[in-house]
Amino acid sequence: MRTLTPLPLTREAFAPFGDVIETAGARHYPINEGTTERFHDLAALDVAAGEGRAIVSVFRGQPRALPLAIRMMERHPLGSQAFMPLSDNPWLVVVARPGVPPGPEDLVAFRPGPGQGVNYAPGVWHHPLIALGAVSDFLVVDRAGPGANCDEHVLAGDPVARIL
Amino acid sequence: MRTLTPLPLTREAFAPFGDVIETAGARHYPINEGTTERFHDLAALDVAAGEGRAIVSVFRGQPRALPLAIRMMERHPLGSQAFMPLSDNPWLVVVARPGVPPGPEDLVAFRPGPGQGVNYAPGVWHHPLIALGAVSDFLVVDRAGPGANCDEHVLAGDPVARIL
Repeated sequence: MRTLTPLPLTREAFAPFGDVIETAGARHYPINEGTTERFHDLAALDVAAGEGRAIVSVFRGQPRALPLAIRMMERHPLGSQAFMPLSDNPWLVVVARPGVPPGPEDLVAFRPGPGQGVNYAPGVWHHPLIALGAVSDFLVVDRAGPGANCDEHVLAGDPVARIL
Repeated sequence: MRTLTPLPLTREAFAPFGDVIETAGARHYPINEGTTERFHDLAALDVAAGEGRAIVSVFRGQPRALPLAIRMMERHPLGSQAFMPLSDNPWLVVVARPGVPPGPEDLVAFRPGPGQGVNYAPGVWHHPLIALGAVSDFLVVDRAGPGANCDEHVLAGDPVARIL
């Protein structure tokens, strides 16, 4: 069994999978007579395929227990999916590059820091939400529209990967 | 001078101005094998006018001091604008119905509770972000695209309205 060690979440490391939504390093400029700073356009939302449109939802994740077995990955071929935490609770991200369904050697785990969200690019394999420690809410911006937009891939083995 | 008393933020009271983004009372269903609850499609994003598209940004608001004079209102005629707080800091919302530029009698103030965001419908007059107590971040989903999408209206008087 492969054991995944979550990496710090950085734009560079996450680039093959999508965007890190964060203010650090982002383009920004003052608005509202200088009372507000706008960190502008932080994620490549890609939701228009097949008459799709962006929607805003809240995902409320139950906390997972560690060690966590990674048994299934999913992808949304028709649209991006952005997660922004609405709390400071810890959480984890497990992804694999688009393309053929991943094996254990393809999985990459990240540990977002405070104020960091992610936007999965279309087709990026990802584990369902992994909240830790407490029930945690996330604002999610993803695609609504016609067409099948969720593929699931069960990893062979029992399990083939885990996070301690 | 008119003194505005912020009202509790409810879907019903805010309906003329847009959506309250909150889990309470929202349609929801379990996903991810029951580990996550999805509170689905919480805001009427309206960003497609004039080749517009949805973008995600972070607004970092400096705290305002009370009493606050209301001197200017703005509107985005081409798109909605959603604000979801990324902290539990208090904040205020001041709005007026779409149409002719508002006078002091048209202003309505709301005090969002924990976990509540708002989505201003296109053309709804609103005061720039009013953070209170501390520097506060908000995730914002609004429109990018061609065209003039911000009108400002300076209220006559010095000032004509305030929040204590």
